[in-house]
Amino acid sequence: MLKTILKSNTVKTMEKIAGRDNVLSSYDECYAYSTDSTNITNPKELAQVVVFPLNTTQVSNIMKYAYSKSIPVTARSAGTSVCGACLPKKGGIVLDFAKMDKILEINKDNLICRVEPGVVIETLQKEVEKYDLFYPPDPSNLKVSMIGGSIGLSSGGPHTFKYGSTKDYVIDLEVVTSDGTIMRTGSSCSKDVTGYNMTQLFVGSEGTLGIITQATIRLIPKPETKRVMLAYFDTLEDTSKAANDIISNLITPSVIDLMDKNTLRTIESFYPCGLLADKTAALLIETDGFKSDIDNQYNKIIEICKINNSSYIQTASNKEEEEKIWISRRSSFGATAKLAPNVLTEDVVVPRENIVPLVKGIWEICSRYELKTCIMGHIGDGNIHPNIALDLRNPIELNNFNKAKSELFELALSLNGRLSGEHGIGCEKSYFIEKALDPNNLKMMKQIKKLFDPKNILNPDKIF
Amino acid sequence: MLKTILKSNTVKTMEKIAGRDNVLSSYDECYAYSTDSTNITNPKELAQVVVFPLNTTQVSNIMKYAYSKSIPVTARSAGTSVCGACLPKKGGIVLDFAKMDKILEINKDNLICRVEPGVVIETLQKEVEKYDLFYPPDPSNLKVSMIGGSIGLSSGGPHTFKYGSTKDYVIDLEVVTSDGTIMRTGSSCSKDVTGYNMTQLFVGSEGTLGIITQATIRLIPKPETKRVMLAYFDTLEDTSKAANDIISNLITPSVIDLMDKNTLRTIESFYPCGLLADKTAALLIETDGFKSDIDNQYNKIIEICKINNSSYIQTASNKEEEEKIWISRRSSFGATAKLAPNVLTEDVVVPRENIVPLVKGIWEICSRYELKTCIMGHIGDGNIHPNIALDLRNPIELNNFNKAKSELFELALSLNGRLSGEHGIGCEKSYFIEKALDPNNLKMMKQIKKLFDPKNILNPDKIF
Repeated sequence: MLKTILKSNTVKTMEKIAGRDNVLSSYDECYAYSTDSTNITNPKELAQVVVFPLNTTQVSNIMKYAYSKSIPVTARSAGTSVCGACLPKKGGIVLDFAKMDKILEINKDNLICRVEPGVVIETLQKEVEKYDLFYPPDPSNLKVSMIGGSIGLSSGGPHTFKYGSTKDYVIDLEVVTSDGTIMRTGSSCSKDVTGYNMTQLFVGSEGTLGIITQATIRLIPKPETKRVMLAYFDTLEDTSKAANDIISNLITPSVIDLMDKNTLRTIESFYPCGLLADKTAALLIETDGFKSDIDNQYNKIIEICKINNSSYIQTASNKEEEEKIWISRRSSFGATAKLAPNVLTEDVVVPRENIVPLVKGIWEICSRYELKTCIMGHIGDGNIHPNIALDLRNPIELNNFNKAKSELFELALSLNGRLSGEHGIGCEKSYFIEKALDPNNLKMMKQIKKLFDPKNILNPDKIF
Repeated sequence: MLKTILKSNTVKTMEKIAGRDNVLSSYDECYAYSTDSTNITNPKELAQVVVFPLNTTQVSNIMKYAYSKSIPVTARSAGTSVCGACLPKKGGIVLDFAKMDKILEINKDNLICRVEPGVVIETLQKEVEKYDLFYPPDPSNLKVSMIGGSIGLSSGGPHTFKYGSTKDYVIDLEVVTSDGTIMRTGSSCSKDVTGYNMTQLFVGSEGTLGIITQATIRLIPKPETKRVMLAYFDTLEDTSKAANDIISNLITPSVIDLMDKNTLRTIESFYPCGLLADKTAALLIETDGFKSDIDNQYNKIIEICKINNSSYIQTASNKEEEEKIWISRRSSFGATAKLAPNVLTEDVVVPRENIVPLVKGIWEICSRYELKTCIMGHIGDGNIHPNIALDLRNPIELNNFNKAKSELFELALSLNGRLSGEHGIGCEKSYFIEKALDPNNLKMMKQIKKLFDPKNILNPDKIF
């Protein structure tokens, strides 16, 4: 109730720039904006003010002010990050892009669209589909997550194996740098080598180099049709070999996702949908393409799974059966969440040849630390997500989780892998980055950070 | 014959590092290495020494020496650049990577290969095909051009429309920076967001930020089959609309190349192969995919071309007929070269919706400057190559060419286009870069250049 007289100069300036209705500054509001899907909030690391900018000029003016006062600024879209990418670690200003949510252009002839950062990914996909176009990146939270955060983290999803992740679609960005400068990084031409590839420097940089205020995205023609199946296996080796053999046979499935034994069991316990809970693993395989060919691809995949000892194949011959398979896949996170008050999702990636030792290693680590783990993953990319269920209020479980996490990263690196395939580094994995990167490369990244953000005000304490 | 006693310290040091057999330093040799496919050599801008490094350590030692003495270093692979990217504008050391030409690994399960910069692109393609894999980028000089230069310029080719250009395939680089530091930019995982995307900063940077000594390249399963056709049109508008309609009908041709009236006439004059020389334009269309579908796609494309008033469609039902169509396409440069002593190839790109005003504009400019021009291009990408035949010894023609070139760039920019889709900027277009890029973006690029190359010794005077 004393809010008005306690307003800081920063809050007053933000209200002046963005309008009073677009600024939040109470403790509760700032607390809400100081967490994300990592489930971690540090009461000492709270935003001082939350601003909903309406346009690029406002963002530029906010950055000019923040730069002059050395105030940290953290860009945020839906707050669905699972690596703490949008936690305001040093307080300051949080920019919520929910009100910059316009699709500015969909151009069918040029196969591009132009969007503001607050556009929800599913909305974008549905809008471009009206033009028979396709935006493939499909992070699992796409019903709420926004394109700004998705670009900041170069997020992926099941379709990445065939179609690539966000980085493969962004061709131009409007970015506001730390001192408020507005710059355009690319062009509307997807084939363009006019100078350095500045666009890709910002994609995946988690808001540490600049604030994205507009993006031009390449689209592709929508596949005519698709079909899905679920193939069960009794060993991980057979599962992995089936995936390899499908690809060796010149088929690139549009999705080739892995569910491990724990995932199958957990989903079937809480959301019974006919999954075979006694199997070691299942592959959800979607193939897409032309109607005249789809059955051919589909049958070839079934044949390859059978050759690789698939013990059961659940096919789908209509929309309902397809949806049933997809519902089981989508239930994995929700089902895991029934096992304990919290679920933390990890994200490591290895070359595909190392998928078996990775999954077995995760089972072993989690069993040793008595952690309930359901493993999902995009086997085509070698990208594995252990969903770990625990009670964060229990210090023993939390301690075990932290130890297991470090061992998981060690394991991935020992298998020529990396810390993240599609979730980013944020503040959750930054403690491990020195072990993951060539030191000369890391040194150069830090120099680039310093060049773009000399006062270290852009989303500080992230990545490294 | 006085060579030995005249050897500079630099030459002696290079011989010590790389061995006497791997160093050239006579005037004739250096002259030969001071030109590329731009046909321009400035006798004042000659290399002082040419070195054939055998490994990364040698490159690092060469850079350490060059850095300590502030000697310029220009990396070169096959010298096929058409924008002067490998001209040693400030003299110094030229590194020829012809002897670092090993394919170090082809990994079918991981869908990657690892190569040295001197691997010829066609060799790489043929080697990976043995594993049923596909490396799509196919610059027209792929029989001689090497992967190092191709990465340096992010080169493309006819298959880029469907499959992307070099930048879409490079996932990891070993790079030697200006002071001799060796760094690795990425990993063997094609899905990887562990830190900034440093790999893409080097791709297309024309050797101005570092010297590429090894690359890891993503591969894809080889399409099962393909078919090709040539469709003729009487107007550019019909040609462009046919291309748009094919893509609107959910077909992504693996190639959709344009040949204009002058190209058709010139090829038919010098290499008669049955082209219809009275047509305004032709589209060479290749479609690829599964055997069970290919005819369906092919017939749909024919139907769409007919609806768009294609006056004749040359189909191919066997390898010989296919080869005949491709031979005509590949003869375009050679045929243009019969028109005058020199051919200069330009490379601009516009959003596809602006292809008609671009081609008409080029016709108008070249006609006004009395330049013989055959236009080829990748219409799907909006990427157009005017091949301009002239006598470089004729100062009037050269002057006209330079004026026309600037007008061509102005035209492309006025149509929301860019200076290069796949050939790069080099020193041939650098005078125009300020007009092409957002000044804040250009400023940032220059700062990045300074960060990586504080002494400006890496391929100086290129891009900007």
